[in-house]
Amino acid sequence: MAKEIKKIALLTGGGDCPGLNAVIRAVTRTAILQYGYEVIGYKFGYRGLYNNDFVPLTLESVTGILHRGGTILYSSNKDNLFDYTVEENGKMVKKDVSDVAVENMKKEGVDALVVIGGDGTLTSARDFARKGVNVIGVPKTIDNDLAATDVTFGFNTAIEVATEALDRLHTTAESHHRIMVCEVMGRNAGWIALEAGIAGSADVILIPEIPYDINKIVEKIRQREAEGKPFSIIVVAEGAKSKDGEVVVSKIVEDSPDPIRLGGIANKLAYDLEQVIKDHEIRSTVLGHIQRGGNTSTYDRILSTRYGVAAVEMINAGLFGNMVCLKGDKISYESLENVIGNNKNVDPEGELVKVAKSIGISFGA
Amino acid sequence: MAKEIKKIALLTGGGDCPGLNAVIRAVTRTAILQYGYEVIGYKFGYRGLYNNDFVPLTLESVTGILHRGGTILYSSNKDNLFDYTVEENGKMVKKDVSDVAVENMKKEGVDALVVIGGDGTLTSARDFARKGVNVIGVPKTIDNDLAATDVTFGFNTAIEVATEALDRLHTTAESHHRIMVCEVMGRNAGWIALEAGIAGSADVILIPEIPYDINKIVEKIRQREAEGKPFSIIVVAEGAKSKDGEVVVSKIVEDSPDPIRLGGIANKLAYDLEQVIKDHEIRSTVLGHIQRGGNTSTYDRILSTRYGVAAVEMINAGLFGNMVCLKGDKISYESLENVIGNNKNVDPEGELVKVAKSIGISFGA
Amino acid sequence: MAKEIKKIALLTGGGDCPGLNAVIRAVTRTAILQYGYEVIGYKFGYRGLYNNDFVPLTLESVTGILHRGGTILYSSNKDNLFDYTVEENGKMVKKDVSDVAVENMKKEGVDALVVIGGDGTLTSARDFARKGVNVIGVPKTIDNDLAATDVTFGFNTAIEVATEALDRLHTTAESHHRIMVCEVMGRNAGWIALEAGIAGSADVILIPEIPYDINKIVEKIRQREAEGKPFSIIVVAEGAKSKDGEVVVSKIVEDSPDPIRLGGIANKLAYDLEQVIKDHEIRSTVLGHIQRGGNTSTYDRILSTRYGVAAVEMINAGLFGNMVCLKGDKISYESLENVIGNNKNVDPEGELVKVAKSIGISFGA
Amino acid sequence: MAKEIKKIALLTGGGDCPGLNAVIRAVTRTAILQYGYEVIGYKFGYRGLYNNDFVPLTLESVTGILHRGGTILYSSNKDNLFDYTVEENGKMVKKDVSDVAVENMKKEGVDALVVIGGDGTLTSARDFARKGVNVIGVPKTIDNDLAATDVTFGFNTAIEVATEALDRLHTTAESHHRIMVCEVMGRNAGWIALEAGIAGSADVILIPEIPYDINKIVEKIRQREAEGKPFSIIVVAEGAKSKDGEVVVSKIVEDSPDPIRLGGIANKLAYDLEQVIKDHEIRSTVLGHIQRGGNTSTYDRILSTRYGVAAVEMINAGLFGNMVCLKGDKISYESLENVIGNNKNVDPEGELVKVAKSIGISFGA
Repeated sequence: MAKEIKKIALLTGGGDCPGLNAVIRAVTRTAILQYGYEVIGYKFGYRGLYNNDFVPLTLESVTGILHRGGTILYSSNKDNLFDYTVEENGKMVKKDVSDVAVENMKKEGVDALVVIGGDGTLTSARDFARKGVNVIGVPKTIDNDLAATDVTFGFNTAIEVATEALDRLHTTAESHHRIMVCEVMGRNAGWIALEAGIAGSADVILIPEIPYDINKIVEKIRQREAEGKPFSIIVVAEGAKSKDGEVVVSKIVEDSPDPIRLGGIANKLAYDLEQVIKDHEIRSTVLGHIQRGGNTSTYDRILSTRYGVAAVEMINAGLFGNMVCLKGDKISYESLENVIGNNKNVDPEGELVKVAKSIGISFGA
Repeated sequence: MAKEIKKIALLTGGGDCPGLNAVIRAVTRTAILQYGYEVIGYKFGYRGLYNNDFVPLTLESVTGILHRGGTILYSSNKDNLFDYTVEENGKMVKKDVSDVAVENMKKEGVDALVVIGGDGTLTSARDFARKGVNVIGVPKTIDNDLAATDVTFGFNTAIEVATEALDRLHTTAESHHRIMVCEVMGRNAGWIALEAGIAGSADVILIPEIPYDINKIVEKIRQREAEGKPFSIIVVAEGAKSKDGEVVVSKIVEDSPDPIRLGGIANKLAYDLEQVIKDHEIRSTVLGHIQRGGNTSTYDRILSTRYGVAAVEMINAGLFGNMVCLKGDKISYESLENVIGNNKNVDPEGELVKVAKSIGISFGA
Repeated sequence: MAKEIKKIALLTGGGDCPGLNAVIRAVTRTAILQYGYEVIGYKFGYRGLYNNDFVPLTLESVTGILHRGGTILYSSNKDNLFDYTVEENGKMVKKDVSDVAVENMKKEGVDALVVIGGDGTLTSARDFARKGVNVIGVPKTIDNDLAATDVTFGFNTAIEVATEALDRLHTTAESHHRIMVCEVMGRNAGWIALEAGIAGSADVILIPEIPYDINKIVEKIRQREAEGKPFSIIVVAEGAKSKDGEVVVSKIVEDSPDPIRLGGIANKLAYDLEQVIKDHEIRSTVLGHIQRGGNTSTYDRILSTRYGVAAVEMINAGLFGNMVCLKGDKISYESLENVIGNNKNVDPEGELVKVAKSIGISFGA
Repeated sequence: MAKEIKKIALLTGGGDCPGLNAVIRAVTRTAILQYGYEVIGYKFGYRGLYNNDFVPLTLESVTGILHRGGTILYSSNKDNLFDYTVEENGKMVKKDVSDVAVENMKKEGVDALVVIGGDGTLTSARDFARKGVNVIGVPKTIDNDLAATDVTFGFNTAIEVATEALDRLHTTAESHHRIMVCEVMGRNAGWIALEAGIAGSADVILIPEIPYDINKIVEKIRQREAEGKPFSIIVVAEGAKSKDGEVVVSKIVEDSPDPIRLGGIANKLAYDLEQVIKDHEIRSTVLGHIQRGGNTSTYDRILSTRYGVAAVEMINAGLFGNMVCLKGDKISYESLENVIGNNKNVDPEGELVKVAKSIGISFGA
């Protein structure tokens, strides 16, 4: 029988994401108000767990954070306690320090740990579960690429920001008869590009799941011209790839110390298009981090709150080793063993791609 | 076997709703680009069908409308052609003029009719289907109260507007230690109040499905004071009802020529609270029509586009007499015979109410 | 010669207003970083000064507040220490308690007081200046009705909120061929109605400075119809007045326990219009407190910051008894003796009214 | 005495800018409603004037455009009819074709021309004025760098977009203890960076008018760390320059086919900072064209409307050869002879820079 829960801990790992604070708030309020648990939050994800660096979470400390992006617990990107860099005898070495973390939780009397993060963070969560820690996972990624849940929080906010940017680019495109290329986030998945592209009235959407042929893009641009619309909006996912694998401006991108920072696919594509389209101005914009910050959308506030409440309910029910998820419009859960490494990509034959094609959007293929 | 489709018509009925134009655009583009149908739109809902008042819908005429609220086809609220007011011999009489509508469609060669509307509009759609018209319904209501679909477009936009208003009211409430009462739409259902209340960090949410006791509201306000938060935000659905049915300021409301216009439940509640809470200022705001206008949210643009494309696919597949709907995250359909009069209310024992209660929101009960 | 300044105090009085926190932040940061002053803030305006209820203001305590509406120092509306309600021998009596305030400042070693407020709050500031307190005034009102300054912070945010609401109402008005009446704030001045009306594409703007004739409004509505625009947007300032002083629905409004709360002029006007216009639906919306809360606009953040820095510069220069103000695009100041009771109304013959008339807006006169 | 005006023309030149449509609308409505002028609009700026490519502007054609970014008349960037590229005997040659433009206006009976544009466009306006054309200039630039007017429309919208982006970047910066570099527009002036930086709570603002020293930036970052704020926001104007003129990553930037497109100063600065700051992640964002598109801000809608009305008043008064401008809060005008080439830069000793410094913002100098 499950030991009685008296104290729980929370941590957030990976890139920041609108809704993290809403989850923290919902977990804390539910834990205190419904079950009388004590709550603490480790700072900077697993690093805080290793360093025993935490803050108490109270009704007061989670006040006024529901709508705010970011995480009041801070986050770090690459700290894996099962393969952690520590100094030993004056040298930096990699070792498994997960026992330190377990020991820290024991010392503090932490009975259960809520881990909010993406694939990397949840992999460690699974590994702690295997070590017997009472772990509950909460999925987080603006990219919406986790297979175990229909939707993750942060995604709706990201597509709202991207869609608003596309709305803005439209006026310039139309006024100057330009081709505007807009790069959005999404890592190896095309969800943000696809949904923002549909919502933002894009003419071409390029996603990693459908390698593009630059000639097909040009064809679409020319077809629009023929229909009296001498301007086009192209949304390109940061992970999009050319069909033939050939990279026209590879030299520049390879030269760069940080290809993503120097503009990545949008700038490359704009350059490539300029080589073949001489009668339009072409401009590129890389949305970057504004997609993951700022106020959390209404949709994400609600979803995050549901996740946070569900995580505490699962603690109360002893459902450890699982990750909360959304199936259809119902909150559910899935074993952490099954969710890791199980990414969700856009189905090139799926409904959303068909919807986009039906209204005339080209995927450059 | 189904007759070949060459020409389709569209109409929008009932209150305007963000996403109507997105559906019109998606239907028109898909019909023209994928199937080569000709498309016309009747103006002002069924009234235009009766008067044979329509416009051709082309790729050009649906350009630039994806994000815009309202409907380019205009709408009317109460025109039921099966019980329509016409002048006969100098008198206004009610009669069934649906045959005129059917005749008009025949004359114009309209092979299928897409009807976008709420309960009232779709009831007529069902009745036309019974008369043999090839009808496809598309559900519309910002109130999200149609049982046959998990979500309707317009709802997300409405809760975004309401949530932003609650965000704004918070600063005043906190600065002045006030009680702010905010009335939102929703007719006889509490969906907008419930979701906007959760997203907007309300302290009390009053919905028709859970009659309220004013003493419980006062209790919550006093409890917050005791916790050092001498201000509260109350969201009240326009259809909310007091538990005991007693109406404290009934005199004023009854006197009024139009109770809703004079402020309805929010002003009444603020007045009632003032009778028992003397140490706080109390203010009420009635959001009104700003909830249903303006730019369509990203979520609603995508959902509306999916509905519009699906409606044309259903025409192509001969699936007449049905309404497109969303089940979980999948587009599906349901017979118009089953959807009418089948409203969806907030379940007082359902997950969302429990989520709200878990984080400490009171329902005044 | 001025005594050396070591410690200053701040207070905010009157209705909350976007930009208050930005002023508090700018005063605090400038005082600490440029002059090494200690800073405290009295809570709830003059009431805190009387009760010696204050908080220290540090770089830390003003972090993250630049964009937030409301005031971290709280505010109260009617506390005048020169005529203050206190309990004496078990009875509530009015008396001058300003000496207590002066004594409190002396005890705490407060060398100068920055008072942020509107007409009422600044009147007391002047009275404290007359008593020899080193006072600097900062003008605050969303209504923009202070004569001594060209612009006050909060006004731009208020017209942005009102304009966005008008944008939203347009889609409903157009879709249903309705007359939409929208009431905005502004007290006895028409600034918010005038500027939001111009920016929000209103057809009729009703302001206190130009009493309206309902027949002229109907005339404008009919003229628009004749031009093929069977819908109209009317913006009405809360202080607008009918020309003949006659109040059609006076009975209802008089019956009400709180006429403003029951909707005031917008609902009345909608009712009046319904008596003469039978072929359109008419709807009214009262924006209310959402105009004064929420995030502060970019313009107001900058203006507030300039005011806050200038207030500290004036303390350093010994320019007491003055109020900071904006003249054209320059920061300046004016004696508190001259600014009180000196309200600024819309000039019916001024440029802005002429601009509105030039593009066809009616003032119902 | 001035010839009676019967017909006027409008054109928009240079980069698109929020408010252009509002000017077009105000000119058209005022011209028609107040003076009965006929109005036409040349398409694509001067190019349309040369090609006699125009549309009639009516009350109908300017409906619904007040809030929309871009220009319904389209614009081109580099068409100077006094030095225009034309084909002659199979070769492209440069020649003065301004007589063709004058002739076109004569043929169409155009009595006066309203030219809306920036420095380049207004230079041609002046040259047409010298040729005897009845020209009125309207200043346009999001960069706010025209000396003859206190403010130009488009600027407020641009700083609102940039400020919102900074708000968003804050959450990521704080959650990850990052340095975020955000590049904004402004050409050779620092106005957007300065005002958005103040409004968006930047820690460092880099503008062309104050060359920066990277060591001073690092100093500021380290100082914030010491104060417990291990994250910083740097706003950099696209025209900002390093003090020593030395360019650390010049190789990459020079290699690039289009340095601006590859990210310009923000990416370079991020790279440079990475060489000296090893204990923080550094990220850069280039806002790009989203700053000049989308909906026009309330402030800009009003200013543009005032400009448009004033332009027609000037035509009526025969005040040709002048540009409308804003002085303080008053509409005025200035001879086109005086406004050209007369740019306005940020004064490093001016009030706004002092305000920024007072609250602790570093200019990296």
